[in-house]
Amino acid sequence: MTQAVSSDLAAALIAKNFSRDEAGILRVGGLPLTELAEDFGTPLFVYDAATMRRTYRALRDALAGFAAIDYSVKANPNPAVIRVFHEEGAGAEIASSAEFDAAIEAGVPPERILFAGPGKGAADLDRVVAGGIGEIHLENREEMFRVAAAGERHGVMVRVALRINPGAAAQGGAMRMGGKPSPFGFDEEAMDAAIDAVEAQAALRLVGLHLFAGTQGLKAETLLGQWAYGLGLAARIARRIGRPLETIDLGGGLGIPYFSGDAALDLGALRAGLPELTATLRADPLLAGARVVLEPGRYLTGPAGIYVARVLAVKASRGSRFVITDGGMHHHLAASGNLGQIVKRDFPLAAVVDGGGAEPAATAVVGPLCTPLDMLARAAPLPPLAEGDLVAVLQSGAYGLTASPTGFLSHPMPAELLVEGGRATAIRPRG
Amino acid sequence: MTQAVSSDLAAALIAKNFSRDEAGILRVGGLPLTELAEDFGTPLFVYDAATMRRTYRALRDALAGFAAIDYSVKANPNPAVIRVFHEEGAGAEIASSAEFDAAIEAGVPPERILFAGPGKGAADLDRVVAGGIGEIHLENREEMFRVAAAGERHGVMVRVALRINPGAAAQGGAMRMGGKPSPFGFDEEAMDAAIDAVEAQAALRLVGLHLFAGTQGLKAETLLGQWAYGLGLAARIARRIGRPLETIDLGGGLGIPYFSGDAALDLGALRAGLPELTATLRADPLLAGARVVLEPGRYLTGPAGIYVARVLAVKASRGSRFVITDGGMHHHLAASGNLGQIVKRDFPLAAVVDGGGAEPAATAVVGPLCTPLDMLARAAPLPPLAEGDLVAVLQSGAYGLTASPTGFLSHPMPAELLVEGGRATAIRPRG
Repeated sequence: MTQAVSSDLAAALIAKNFSRDEAGILRVGGLPLTELAEDFGTPLFVYDAATMRRTYRALRDALAGFAAIDYSVKANPNPAVIRVFHEEGAGAEIASSAEFDAAIEAGVPPERILFAGPGKGAADLDRVVAGGIGEIHLENREEMFRVAAAGERHGVMVRVALRINPGAAAQGGAMRMGGKPSPFGFDEEAMDAAIDAVEAQAALRLVGLHLFAGTQGLKAETLLGQWAYGLGLAARIARRIGRPLETIDLGGGLGIPYFSGDAALDLGALRAGLPELTATLRADPLLAGARVVLEPGRYLTGPAGIYVARVLAVKASRGSRFVITDGGMHHHLAASGNLGQIVKRDFPLAAVVDGGGAEPAATAVVGPLCTPLDMLARAAPLPPLAEGDLVAVLQSGAYGLTASPTGFLSHPMPAELLVEGGRATAIRPRG
Repeated sequence: MTQAVSSDLAAALIAKNFSRDEAGILRVGGLPLTELAEDFGTPLFVYDAATMRRTYRALRDALAGFAAIDYSVKANPNPAVIRVFHEEGAGAEIASSAEFDAAIEAGVPPERILFAGPGKGAADLDRVVAGGIGEIHLENREEMFRVAAAGERHGVMVRVALRINPGAAAQGGAMRMGGKPSPFGFDEEAMDAAIDAVEAQAALRLVGLHLFAGTQGLKAETLLGQWAYGLGLAARIARRIGRPLETIDLGGGLGIPYFSGDAALDLGALRAGLPELTATLRADPLLAGARVVLEPGRYLTGPAGIYVARVLAVKASRGSRFVITDGGMHHHLAASGNLGQIVKRDFPLAAVVDGGGAEPAATAVVGPLCTPLDMLARAAPLPPLAEGDLVAVLQSGAYGLTASPTGFLSHPMPAELLVEGGRATAIRPRG
């Protein structure tokens, strides 16, 4: 039964974002994956710009009147991907100076870039301060002094926000008391002291709050609860500094369905909860003028990406069916279940060519590395496959290639393609 | 209690392979890590050639008269590391054509190189066959035909070995019936058919067996049991083909202690069990002339490597102590517990400068990435640390940098240093 459901997720995702032609060939933006694999080689990442734009616009419309969107570059830092969201109107949230450079390359103005992350070094800070970054999120005391020093070195008053580790954790739709120990940000209990310390720095201008209360959230009520909590923290900061806040960054954390049983985030339910938050915001003169921002990454790029691998061999071993491909964990650590998953479950997989005639059977899909860890799926419901056939791993546009150990066993880097307007462009050449 | 034991492992490893000077500074090959970090920047991988050579020689001596050693390049593919073992007399076991190129660059003659791994593609095979590789291990039927085709294209008779997925699994010191389904190799039950298929290929010459029955083995009796089983399989292959085997590759799988409670592999016990295996071998005219080979990787390089990171901030949060460093899971996925570990346990960690005066306390060591996965240790017993201090992660010479998602958040590649003869050489420059 699990297999059938998982197959349903793959079919639903294909129906929503891609298509199959009359020959059963999976197409991205109208282009057959068989041809892209032939032209650009395998393994291969293919991203669909139309899906990214559609996803962005749906989220933007759902958030309209409440929050703007900054694209979280870490999810997929290819400048061509950042550019798609920039063209749609997004700013960028970055976590290293190389991500800053990628955003600049994509055309994002520096003042529309936010720098978050718990370990910002002096060299990173020098680069972004010199580059005119819009805002830096302070995570701890040592970092505050480093940012101030960078501002002094460059003769710049740096706009900063305080990242707060909330004293409450999301539980159901609400935030209950009892936040966890965390390396991220200042504990809420120590917020006032942190505010005062920042205010004492001549080179820093405290303009906002950053709250990131969780990742991969699939429930609207959980996200709304976190955001409401964030507005309360923002009000406390504004009261303490005695002037209006300019930005309130409520984090990312919007999830996408990966596994059988995952339900997609309900944008309608999200939208329905926003008037109350907007009213809270507008009623507070110290918050009414603030730019509220969300910084999704996975939500925007994940569904638009497919990882394509070619079958090298098919093997039956003691009752199990193995498909050995040229793709694996070195390109897609998350699909192999080694990127933080406690329980290893299969990403949605599909055969690139599937006429629908053959009965699917539970299939283990493994990569070319000499380790049992190198599994793209444990029991994916796939039709019979043979050497030369192609397998597609869906939901692969975020935390794919750049979150994977690409040097493991020294295979070449795969190409990354962006499909838009009926054309495929190699936005990273094959290594 | 766990913490104290873990601290003992770090101290024992330092005493065995490295040293602390009178100022409490951790030295590698006589060089203070503080100076190396200053000169080459952090994060940093430091490998000690003397430790590699000492480890190699101890294993070589223990195996003397029974087996030779081929270094498994995947553990650490830097050509300078491969060269150390080549100078000691080792051949190389590779798993991709880029690893073949690295071994050649290190000076290993092609005929001393073995190619293993379940997904060898046509391009990889062309490269190594054209390059004169010594032996290719066949993992499945499709691959057998690809290797034969490569041999035909290049007019070469390719020497091959059959990789067998044993019909028994290691249990205690013995092999008990009931092998598992596996994507690796030919199932033992299908061995005779596989032998006959290879013998029918004009471009292939079947010369040996490859058995890899497990990884990270810390018990001599388990390894001895696997090797004895391998000799039995080898005898069956030799009988079937009716001529002497030339090579018997018994795999790697020699482990090193990572966690509190792990006991190092007892080379004396290993040595004590070998005369019986050697006698079996010599008694069989079809095996007596075969070159028996082991292909350890982790065992040879793991203990020689240290990952060094610099402290960016120290934070107390709700009763927990966090040290935020510039190093993290993007360079050392295994230490973060995300390289296949079911239970996340801490690698042995130490402060680079530790006079021994301060009481250690359980410390979480985290990296600069914006994810709770980025933890180098959960509760390492470390003395008080401050911004600018250095932390060393031991047992980091194998499956470190090249097994990590180095592009995650786009931080620069760290340098890799090889220390030998009182000098440090950057064998990979800082990115």
